[in-house]
Amino acid sequence: MGQFVIRGQVINPVTPDRTTLTDCVVHVGADGRIVARHASDSPMATQMLDHAARQGMPVRTLSASQVLTPGFTDLHVHAPQWPQMGRALDLPLRDWLEQRTFPLEARFADPAFAAPVYDEMVRTLLANGTTTAVFFATIHEESSLLLARTCLRHGLRALVGLVAMDDPALCPPTYRNASVDQALAATRRFIHAVRALPGNEGELVRPMVTPRFIPACTDNLLRGLGELAVEEDCLIQTHCSESDWEHDYVRQRTGVNDTMALDRFGLLRRGTVLAHSCHMTAADMALVQARGAAIAHCPLSNAYFAGAVLPLRAAWQAGVHVGLGTDLSGGYSPSIAVNAAMAVTASRMLDTGTDPARAAGDRGRPGARLTFAEGLWLATRGGTAALDIAAGQFDAGQAFDAIMIDRTAPGSNILPPVHGETDRVAADVVQQILCNIGRPNIRTVWVAGRKVHDTEA
Amino acid sequence: MGQFVIRGQVINPVTPDRTTLTDCVVHVGADGRIVARHASDSPMATQMLDHAARQGMPVRTLSASQVLTPGFTDLHVHAPQWPQMGRALDLPLRDWLEQRTFPLEARFADPAFAAPVYDEMVRTLLANGTTTAVFFATIHEESSLLLARTCLRHGLRALVGLVAMDDPALCPPTYRNASVDQALAATRRFIHAVRALPGNEGELVRPMVTPRFIPACTDNLLRGLGELAVEEDCLIQTHCSESDWEHDYVRQRTGVNDTMALDRFGLLRRGTVLAHSCHMTAADMALVQARGAAIAHCPLSNAYFAGAVLPLRAAWQAGVHVGLGTDLSGGYSPSIAVNAAMAVTASRMLDTGTDPARAAGDRGRPGARLTFAEGLWLATRGGTAALDIAAGQFDAGQAFDAIMIDRTAPGSNILPPVHGETDRVAADVVQQILCNIGRPNIRTVWVAGRKVHDTEA
Repeated sequence: MGQFVIRGQVINPVTPDRTTLTDCVVHVGADGRIVARHASDSPMATQMLDHAARQGMPVRTLSASQVLTPGFTDLHVHAPQWPQMGRALDLPLRDWLEQRTFPLEARFADPAFAAPVYDEMVRTLLANGTTTAVFFATIHEESSLLLARTCLRHGLRALVGLVAMDDPALCPPTYRNASVDQALAATRRFIHAVRALPGNEGELVRPMVTPRFIPACTDNLLRGLGELAVEEDCLIQTHCSESDWEHDYVRQRTGVNDTMALDRFGLLRRGTVLAHSCHMTAADMALVQARGAAIAHCPLSNAYFAGAVLPLRAAWQAGVHVGLGTDLSGGYSPSIAVNAAMAVTASRMLDTGTDPARAAGDRGRPGARLTFAEGLWLATRGGTAALDIAAGQFDAGQAFDAIMIDRTAPGSNILPPVHGETDRVAADVVQQILCNIGRPNIRTVWVAGRKVHDTEA
Repeated sequence: MGQFVIRGQVINPVTPDRTTLTDCVVHVGADGRIVARHASDSPMATQMLDHAARQGMPVRTLSASQVLTPGFTDLHVHAPQWPQMGRALDLPLRDWLEQRTFPLEARFADPAFAAPVYDEMVRTLLANGTTTAVFFATIHEESSLLLARTCLRHGLRALVGLVAMDDPALCPPTYRNASVDQALAATRRFIHAVRALPGNEGELVRPMVTPRFIPACTDNLLRGLGELAVEEDCLIQTHCSESDWEHDYVRQRTGVNDTMALDRFGLLRRGTVLAHSCHMTAADMALVQARGAAIAHCPLSNAYFAGAVLPLRAAWQAGVHVGLGTDLSGGYSPSIAVNAAMAVTASRMLDTGTDPARAAGDRGRPGARLTFAEGLWLATRGGTAALDIAAGQFDAGQAFDAIMIDRTAPGSNILPPVHGETDRVAADVVQQILCNIGRPNIRTVWVAGRKVHDTEA
């Protein structure tokens, strides 16, 4: 891949509460990283463009209606639930799992079933602007490795977990690991296989140690996975304090909350991704912060299965990393932008409460609301920072993982900057994108400088 | 317009909790009404197709991935706030009104400003599948009449209200009616003018009596508008018990809740559309039911400005008509499908509550949750039934207001019926549509049999 330059309006999440919108020139190197970014009206930008012209580098100039944002990071996707996206959410959790979800995941024993599903999923996530995704696959080695290969082929930055679940009390006989040793050996083989994939020398796709959640795993499996993660220096993902039922189940079985239990099993480490975490206490958050782990906030899914909204601002105040997850198919949208807007909406409903039969002062949790700028941070840099990936901002040295959004594309629900209005504040542009973006607006998507989706070809 | 026949999968909301998905043949008459609908495998369908062939009627056969639904009804849109869609929602309500919304609405004194805004808005609503819309315009007669003409030109079924607001205590000097008499005379002229519009003989576009809300209007204006609505036999719309502040303000000023106050002013009648209504009591709902009025539920907007979720099931149990509103730009999405999905999501958050610091048993209002089939009813027949419009179902005699949804359109986030899954239940198809529909999926839209949006031309 050669170097190139892009010139146009750039949205950059600088901190959770500060986003800039500036006309910039961005130089992307042959290694897919940003060499430099300069304001278009600066002398450095002129120098950069002169240099590009001398070198014969391609220069792409965006139109006034186009804008560049960092790519989105999805910290929690159940890849095998893809065929169930936007379905079955009327069912109670138990029926959803037993009648639909477990039987569907069990079908991924057959790689021929998995192949077209994973191919369609990866292409659709890219088309929605996701440039990094963290996947739960299934317990099946062959199709989970196929998922890793599919990400690599389409250029999606990914972390892929072979799921481990062995407790007969909760896992159906047709869909669980045969034993602790089988699960540990399979996980180790999977880690080695992903790292050895041809074309994966740059580690675009990485393995993850993935105990489904405490209720689905025996103590021995959890302890073994914790040791394996250290031995293999491998990131970890699991579910944490998602619902009242799950939170209480773990307390009954272990005597402590999920975070403390995970910590005792050696599973709470820097880079561990804890999906949901709605029912974490302040002590839980302090522990998560101390370990450097992160929360994958899944606001759409939580409305259906968690029974509460993650107090995200409290997590931030405790210094915890937070990013967003679609939680397909517990959440119904493949779009991280939709989930970012929902994170803002859900934060308002936590802030004010929902039941008008209660007095206003006894209804909500004031101070919980998020801004749309904070929603963009969660969708971009919040996720990559959690994973220690150098991407998510347009800064020199970071990978060029980016989306070119066209606000006047045919079929756009984002309004163009007309009607005598100007883009008064970056916050307005960010809000329009998170609230009203659709597939037609997402024209080009890059991961590590490579074009991975392009509707303008 | 000639007669035509459409054959394919049809989603029909029969009752709030019963939706059918059947392969049908639908015959649309020259008057834009459905002549008959028959199951494709019935002898009547064969007869209908024979008849169509003999008469040389066009017959359109949908593909297996295409499906017909009733058009969407949007019971609450602030047309002049269109340029502000997806903006400014981080602001507190008072700043949102004073710094942004009132100054924007005031600009519609200039029809040259209004014309392109209203044109773009009407075309975009149609492109999102809205076939009936209920609009608040502004206090300006000329541009409000322009809105009515724009709806007529593009074929959108609409109710358009010239806004009345005269109380100096709440309305800015640059944007309020000069006096009660001025407001009443303007409303009467507007009603006559809309009814007399050339091309409006079929009353596709109708006027509405539109007091903004009680706090913005003096008692004399409210009383006068109630009398005018009776004299002119005109439907009414207003806001009702939207937020704690508004609800309390009305109680302080009138000694009763919004519904009772509106009733005393003669404004609570069959067909009156009450936007929001989140803070209605059981007694309010009983009164609304007795008068035959309806609630426009605006779930997205309410997350930002209402401080609570409408207990919609309680309204239904009281026998009250309920439909959906986008409440642009208090709500950020022009799509009624997005709002229908949000109605379901918000109902779950009312059902369970949102604050994990409360015990599960003391967090929500169990029994509040809605199904996606109920969401579709709200989006379609719930709205038309509220307005006594014969549309919203595929039954003989109803207007053919319909959307052809293509689940395999390029850029679709709805999954096609593949992966060995079948469309096991109508509920799954309905849910996919409400959750994941995008502009690319909406191929053709009809109002009263007329094609008003078509991406296949």
